[in-house]
Amino acid sequence: MAGAEIEQLIGLLSKLPGLGPRSGRRVALHLLRKREALLEPLAEALRRAGEAVRPCSLCGNLDTVEPCTLCRDLRRERAMICVVEDVADLWALERSGAYRGLYHVLGGVLSALDGVGPEELAIHPLLARVQGGAVREVILALSATVDGQTTAFYLTERLAGLGVSVTRLAHGVPVGGELDYLDEGTIGAALKARRPV
Amino acid sequence: MAGAEIEQLIGLLSKLPGLGPRSGRRVALHLLRKREALLEPLAEALRRAGEAVRPCSLCGNLDTVEPCTLCRDLRRERAMICVVEDVADLWALERSGAYRGLYHVLGGVLSALDGVGPEELAIHPLLARVQGGAVREVILALSATVDGQTTAFYLTERLAGLGVSVTRLAHGVPVGGELDYLDEGTIGAALKARRPV
Repeated sequence: MAGAEIEQLIGLLSKLPGLGPRSGRRVALHLLRKREALLEPLAEALRRAGEAVRPCSLCGNLDTVEPCTLCRDLRRERAMICVVEDVADLWALERSGAYRGLYHVLGGVLSALDGVGPEELAIHPLLARVQGGAVREVILALSATVDGQTTAFYLTERLAGLGVSVTRLAHGVPVGGELDYLDEGTIGAALKARRPV
Repeated sequence: MAGAEIEQLIGLLSKLPGLGPRSGRRVALHLLRKREALLEPLAEALRRAGEAVRPCSLCGNLDTVEPCTLCRDLRRERAMICVVEDVADLWALERSGAYRGLYHVLGGVLSALDGVGPEELAIHPLLARVQGGAVREVILALSATVDGQTTAFYLTERLAGLGVSVTRLAHGVPVGGELDYLDEGTIGAALKARRPV
């Protein structure tokens, strides 16, 4: 109905997570209406991010410098490595402001169903970092799903004997969360790990 | 936490309709992970659409040719103009395949609240097209909202005496729609406009 340029733009936008053909059209129109305020800056931002952003060779974080800002930050605690599934989880931990150590991005979790074995994940580089010395604690910040917990178990086995303590995030009630919206597993875990007030 | 390039990309993506800071981050990560399959083609598609796509000087449709593909299509009925609020509505009508006339994109509806008066909309160009002769029917395909209906009323007044019949889309039950999910206004309108089977 319109030019091939519009159709192609809609097609690509429709492939973004959370968007479909309908919202893809909506976003495309919005961009074409706000050409100078949005479309052109976005095209430029994509081009620049595509050129400049690379995974850090040490931890797997995405950044424009190598090693990444976190790995080269000497104020961070270098004896702790927090293992995350992907960069989104790393960002979430950074937003919390609660962690000041280093990271290691696995790039996924083990999954028999999806054919993801240890070789597909950044497990060897993690073991190499730990064997390099200096690291005293590895925190497994993996999803509390079956695959996430399988991966945590596998990593715990591999890290055993390397002289580091291996910990995982606590389970419990989310801060601000309402009890009656929580699943039984979380409530059970929070109860088991109850603490004196 | 990462480079300014990533932050800027997230900021722009967060401004897209339907997205917010959280989904903006998700989309940015997805794009950075699928650099060659998605990020680069999208940057290129945006650049090309931004350069090539312009509003048609006759009807306001967005296209890469001037006048647009619809206005220059000689197989279309040139005695009918369908007036729509924006290009999204034009696309929706085209997808239906039920209309083979010309269009006129108003660029919005009259709104006292948002300060949109007749001068802000493409009403003069519409009147000029009608006064040019050739047009026999103007179909007002505007939203069934207060502002949409105010605009339809205003246009009907302005078109009176120009020798065209002015019609509007029928109200009724959406095809495939369930009665008990419909509002009373629609059910009332569908009942009033009932037809023999």
